Amino acid sequence: MVILGIDPGFRFAGFGILKKEGRQALLLDYGYLGMSSSESLIERIGQFHHFFETKITQWHVTTIALETPFLGKNAQNFLKLGYLRGIVYLLAHKYSITVKEFAPCEVKQSVTGYGGATKDQIARVILQLFPGMELPKKEDVTDAVAVTLCGLWSHQLNSSSKV
Amino acid sequence: MVILGIDPGFRFAGFGILKKEGRQALLLDYGYLGMSSSESLIERIGQFHHFFETKITQWHVTTIALETPFLGKNAQNFLKLGYLRGIVYLLAHKYSITVKEFAPCEVKQSVTGYGGATKDQIARVILQLFPGMELPKKEDVTDAVAVTLCGLWSHQLNSSSKV
Repeated sequence: MVILGIDPGFRFAGFGILKKEGRQALLLDYGYLGMSSSESLIERIGQFHHFFETKITQWHVTTIALETPFLGKNAQNFLKLGYLRGIVYLLAHKYSITVKEFAPCEVKQSVTGYGGATKDQIARVILQLFPGMELPKKEDVTDAVAVTLCGLWSHQLNSSSKV
Repeated sequence: MVILGIDPGFRFAGFGILKKEGRQALLLDYGYLGMSSSESLIERIGQFHHFFETKITQWHVTTIALETPFLGKNAQNFLKLGYLRGIVYLLAHKYSITVKEFAPCEVKQSVTGYGGATKDQIARVILQLFPGMELPKKEDVTDAVAVTLCGLWSHQLNSSSKV
């Protein structure tokens, strides 16, 4: 079981890839795709698709974990987030990957024990859980690893083999 | 120059394909992709991608025309429309297709002369312009042909060769 968690965005798209090995969660890969705001949306959608298709095939991803988006102040940003999510669903369809979605408060609650945790608090817990992880430049990365963990834990709950 | 106009939707996705031949606009293809609400979103995203990729390669589409979406009462529907638009952009990227977008009132204004026209009024104008067209079961089809026409006309304006 290999889980890819994605925190999509047109500037930075964070990701984490976890593999379940026995009772351990192995962090196979993590980081972010940075895209230039000088590129067109269409160009960046192409880059996003290529980047995550490569990750999926490289690591034989079986599950994708995403946060459910919420409508903030900017409806256009919300719509544009939909573009990237559409690409994630298309890849899930192509490679027969299960998609799991978690509300932002659910991710914070699961990882830190507190549904109102800040990005910084999430980052600290993630770095404690994976001490080998290099301090990422972007909190999008620790956010993405947090949602990846949720994907792993929800699977373990479903299959009644809690670690 | 071959223009594909799409009116995306998870139940019915209307489309029209127009080719500029000299001073004439030839309606090469039109209709809709119907998808079952009993299928998952991911399955339907896969169907949508496959359907329009086939149309694009079959007719050698050079331009895609879309309506700009607006945030209605249902934010989730708005987001889901974003998924399908993301797929359209990905196809545009893959086949190096120009995407043109038009506000709904702009489409109505261009086609009927009135920015507040109803779907029925649009349908009547489209059926007058293309008398050979079979009366479609869905207004999504005439809506899609309307946005396709906008794509054609805007190109003609840009290239200063108004028909």
